[in-house]
Amino acid sequence: QTRFKVAVLAGDGIGPEVMAEAHKVLNAVEARFGLTFERTEALVGGAAIDAVGQPLPPQTLSICQQSDAILFGSVGGPKWTGLAPDQQPERGSLLPLRKTFDLFCNLRPGQIYPAFADLSPLHPRVSSQGMDVLCVRELTGGIYFGEKGRGENSAFDTQTYSTAEISRIARVAFEAAQKRSHKVTSIDKANVLQTSILWREVVTEVAKDFPDVALEHMYIDNAAMQLIRSPQQFDVLLCDNLFGDILSDELAAIAGSMGLLPSASLNGSGFGLYEPAGGSAPDIAGQGIANPIAQILSAALMLRYSFGLEEAAKAIEQAVQQCLQQGIVTRDIQPDSSYGTADVGSAIANAI
Amino acid sequence: QTRFKVAVLAGDGIGPEVMAEAHKVLNAVEARFGLTFERTEALVGGAAIDAVGQPLPPQTLSICQQSDAILFGSVGGPKWTGLAPDQQPERGSLLPLRKTFDLFCNLRPGQIYPAFADLSPLHPRVSSQGMDVLCVRELTGGIYFGEKGRGENSAFDTQTYSTAEISRIARVAFEAAQKRSHKVTSIDKANVLQTSILWREVVTEVAKDFPDVALEHMYIDNAAMQLIRSPQQFDVLLCDNLFGDILSDELAAIAGSMGLLPSASLNGSGFGLYEPAGGSAPDIAGQGIANPIAQILSAALMLRYSFGLEEAAKAIEQAVQQCLQQGIVTRDIQPDSSYGTADVGSAIANAI
Ligand SMILES: CC(C)[C@H](C(=O)O)[C@@H](O)C(=O)O
Ligand SMILES: CC(C)[C@H](C(=O)O)[C@@H](O)C(=O)O
Repeated sequence: QTRFKVAVLAGDGIGPEVMAEAHKVLNAVEARFGLTFERTEALVGGAAIDAVGQPLPPQTLSICQQSDAILFGSVGGPKWTGLAPDQQPERGSLLPLRKTFDLFCNLRPGQIYPAFADLSPLHPRVSSQGMDVLCVRELTGGIYFGEKGRGENSAFDTQTYSTAEISRIARVAFEAAQKRSHKVTSIDKANVLQTSILWREVVTEVAKDFPDVALEHMYIDNAAMQLIRSPQQFDVLLCDNLFGDILSDELAAIAGSMGLLPSASLNGSGFGLYEPAGGSAPDIAGQGIANPIAQILSAALMLRYSFGLEEAAKAIEQAVQQCLQQGIVTRDIQPDSSYGTADVGSAIANAI
Repeated sequence: QTRFKVAVLAGDGIGPEVMAEAHKVLNAVEARFGLTFERTEALVGGAAIDAVGQPLPPQTLSICQQSDAILFGSVGGPKWTGLAPDQQPERGSLLPLRKTFDLFCNLRPGQIYPAFADLSPLHPRVSSQGMDVLCVRELTGGIYFGEKGRGENSAFDTQTYSTAEISRIARVAFEAAQKRSHKVTSIDKANVLQTSILWREVVTEVAKDFPDVALEHMYIDNAAMQLIRSPQQFDVLLCDNLFGDILSDELAAIAGSMGLLPSASLNGSGFGLYEPAGGSAPDIAGQGIANPIAQILSAALMLRYSFGLEEAAKAIEQAVQQCLQQGIVTRDIQPDSSYGTADVGSAIANAI
């Protein structure tokens, strides 16, 4: 297959700027590998609220449904924070997209590249050792989607997990670990939560199918601590929806270079949503200084996981590494840099 | 009042060693201020499991009931990790104690002392600015104590919060902020959880009674990130039970000096449980090298919050500062130090 359909949801803030660079890179990949990425743009987030009154319009959803993958920018900004929670740009678009497409598996890598260790807010004695962690987060269950409600003077939320939900995400974590450093750290609060006790049991069971991967269980509070103290101890972090939300952002903070971190949200049949780990950064939007690398690496993940184009994905990743090495980076990476968003995107596209 | 009853629950690991130093300090306070701390020791945690088969024996509970406060050491260790969750030393003692005495308010300070900034795992460009954060955690509600259960192939936990539960802990946070830097950051996940929406509403309402305190709301995932990036932005963190569990440990990790951090768990009538933030550290137990300062500062908090002995509490805190300044510290603080647990405890007691 050489033809793929991509729904492009650029969103708000720096979303459109960095998406423009991802387009350049995808064009370069098309040319080099003889591929066609048929791209359809659609409104999402605050831009969609402003245009048609809702963060995920039906037309956007239907464009996604007709595509092989979604390349997502970023959504949200101060303009829309007053809205009701389920009408807000981020929540109002991401949660329904995850549920509609059963995107149960969220992959968020966090790395400290030794050459850029100083970007990390950790002490050099820790960050100089580098870090390479993959957070595997369950994305369609748990307290996010359980029954919830409001009484006169109270409110409740329910966290539920089934054996099937846990085992399918656990398998992803173990399979990922097999291609990495063969270690899974499963995060729970099994000293307090029944769902965590089940989580621990199921993960332990799944582990039996992966004798070459070491399994460790860790309480979420301890993990929040260990990730700061010695992130090198981790390879793959396996988390439920809520704990993964927290730890993946802590991991991103530790990496320090939000502008470099992509993410993938996948279902069981190759469909996925790909987005930068960072937000819409309204403070720097429109200035041409946002780092496009996270968006570009998200496109690389799309090629790998949804299109099976491993070689093309690697070509993008190598081009990114090359630019990093040559110092062609935005000022979030190198404060005295004079390169802008478009310079970095063009350099990566040219390197392909 | 000059006479106070203290239930002393030393527990496991380094608990008994550091508790011995707290005793020395309390003796010194008795002598200097003409006070009597009538102390009754009781079994808890693994030590209680080994002796009588349960982590919180009825006799221990009744000693606590007859006391004005509980001075708690630390519990747990590898010996007992195989037990069922609710029989384990930590969970099996702390959760029932919190519930029995309605200890709804957990206070956990986290500091970076500029003189010891290098203990922090953060980069010197961050840690050199110091840090002084107080985490106020709701301790008797939320997903810890909601309905929970197990089905054939599933499990669930319920998080509930009432207006009353939220407002009483919010008041504590605002009152604390009035004595500090007049800022409360309330942590929630109001874009996903109904309990968080209620939390945000009630906290906003309570804030009206404290016009001199600035209130800010922050999502838990962002807070986990911001705490690492720029902990200086925080004064008082107000958290529900689960988020407070995670963030207070993250805060402790950032402070770096676990051996210096006390904690207090209070109810509405002055009764409290006081314990070091760190664990039982079985790896160094019995070697006489554990840092007794967190235990000693926990005793100071007991004097302040349960006994209203502000002057005596300050005397302990000043004596601790003096030892820190003189370098009379264990090796977790100064790796080449030759002082042991007893040296530090005696020095603090002598300074009183
Ligand atoms: C916007 C919000 C609902 C979402 C989440 O909590 O999952 C976001 O924080 C994320 O991690 O993608
Ligand atoms: C032992 C455990 C139940 C407890 C908690 O989660 O509250 C502990 O982590 C704490 O923070 O005191």
